[in-house]
Amino acid sequence: MTYCVGLCLAQGVVMLSDTRTNAGLDNISTFSKMQTVENPGERAMVLLSAGNLAITQAVWNLLQPGVWLNGTQQRLTDVPDMFAGAQLVGAAVRAVQAMDGPSLMAQGIGFDCSLLLGGQIAGQPPRLFLIYNAGNFIEATRDTPYLQIGEHKYGKPILDRVLTFDTPLKRGVALCMISMDSTIRSNLSVGPPLDLAVIPTDGLGIAFRRRITEDNAYYRIVKEGWSNALRDAYLNLPEPDLLLRSDAGG
Amino acid sequence: MTYCVGLCLAQGVVMLSDTRTNAGLDNISTFSKMQTVENPGERAMVLLSAGNLAITQAVWNLLQPGVWLNGTQQRLTDVPDMFAGAQLVGAAVRAVQAMDGPSLMAQGIGFDCSLLLGGQIAGQPPRLFLIYNAGNFIEATRDTPYLQIGEHKYGKPILDRVLTFDTPLKRGVALCMISMDSTIRSNLSVGPPLDLAVIPTDGLGIAFRRRITEDNAYYRIVKEGWSNALRDAYLNLPEPDLLLRSDAGG
Repeated sequence: MTYCVGLCLAQGVVMLSDTRTNAGLDNISTFSKMQTVENPGERAMVLLSAGNLAITQAVWNLLQPGVWLNGTQQRLTDVPDMFAGAQLVGAAVRAVQAMDGPSLMAQGIGFDCSLLLGGQIAGQPPRLFLIYNAGNFIEATRDTPYLQIGEHKYGKPILDRVLTFDTPLKRGVALCMISMDSTIRSNLSVGPPLDLAVIPTDGLGIAFRRRITEDNAYYRIVKEGWSNALRDAYLNLPEPDLLLRSDAGG
Repeated sequence: MTYCVGLCLAQGVVMLSDTRTNAGLDNISTFSKMQTVENPGERAMVLLSAGNLAITQAVWNLLQPGVWLNGTQQRLTDVPDMFAGAQLVGAAVRAVQAMDGPSLMAQGIGFDCSLLLGGQIAGQPPRLFLIYNAGNFIEATRDTPYLQIGEHKYGKPILDRVLTFDTPLKRGVALCMISMDSTIRSNLSVGPPLDLAVIPTDGLGIAFRRRITEDNAYYRIVKEGWSNALRDAYLNLPEPDLLLRSDAGG
């Protein structure tokens, strides 16, 4: 399993992924699920992937020499805009499906693959896309400024409650860490180290790219601080006497 | 969809369920998923159900006249212990599977059904079981004093972080409400009103049984208070400057 989350906020793009892969519970490994494309001052993109590792690695490898799109062979380093970038990733997914899909199907294995592509090209706003296994995709918006792939449920409530398009970038990083920690605590197949990348709006470069290990000081603060904060928040809620009174009504 | 959660704590059993059912997004109804069995001073049980409504209603109906178990026809009102109660519910599930399973399979519909049975019989400790669609079951323990059925992921992180066997009963009710609210916020197919039942240890009766509507004062406190508390907790976490410093290391 995997958990990846991307934010597209007023101040920029935040991308966070775990690194755990498993082919059965007894075959657990560490693979980065983050790839970057950068031409400082002109474009910066981050691609996160979830699903069958053979498929997502093939997608990334096909993207390197370029994939045919709209009659020309294009690469993420030269697509004219982020929408074309998402189309290109979708075309690579479809190319892998054409190559490997029938053999996978013959083995009863689904074509399991989803990707997040976030970033900015000079003169255009930052954008964030979720590309599905059919090669089609959706885009994050001001109303819903985050997208997730993989094991998304455990880490969703905190994003739903707190995140807005105007959340400051640093706060967005903290929220992604909380969302990731909630997922890691509840699903053994999602685990550290984590890969974090931040693309500030109009920075046109990857300002931060970190491999965050379990003993990273801030990660420890999030893990312990958030658990304690949740415990305090719950203890500060009033006891349900009101609810349990026999005359409480509906 | 459905979300039901049961706790088996030192001070007693808490059972909470939503009431939303759906046969497609355009066919949403309210059905209680909670059934009770009570002989005050001798036994009290609560049964919660998730899955195909036709199956879970059939399970409850078969339990009324009694189901054959270990050579005799038994009812929840006369099983000798909670383990036999879970066996009896499992036997009813298997009886419905025998009746309806082949026709469902012919329509390509899975046999989707799971149940929580919690309660106490005089002279024995309170117990809580999760009965699967195959009729087999697991029991909550001191290590893991809660069980969930239905849409369980959104509401699990708060239970994992805070709940212990020694959590006071009232606090357990508050935790169930928080867990339910997290689920309702993230999954449209889980919704109020809620059904709550509490069986205090050695009370041998259902001390509280409430239908909790959306305008219930305590439910509103949980909804608003928890959102605010989470927001505060997140705002009180330090900003990730430590993480984003270029010399931050791993």
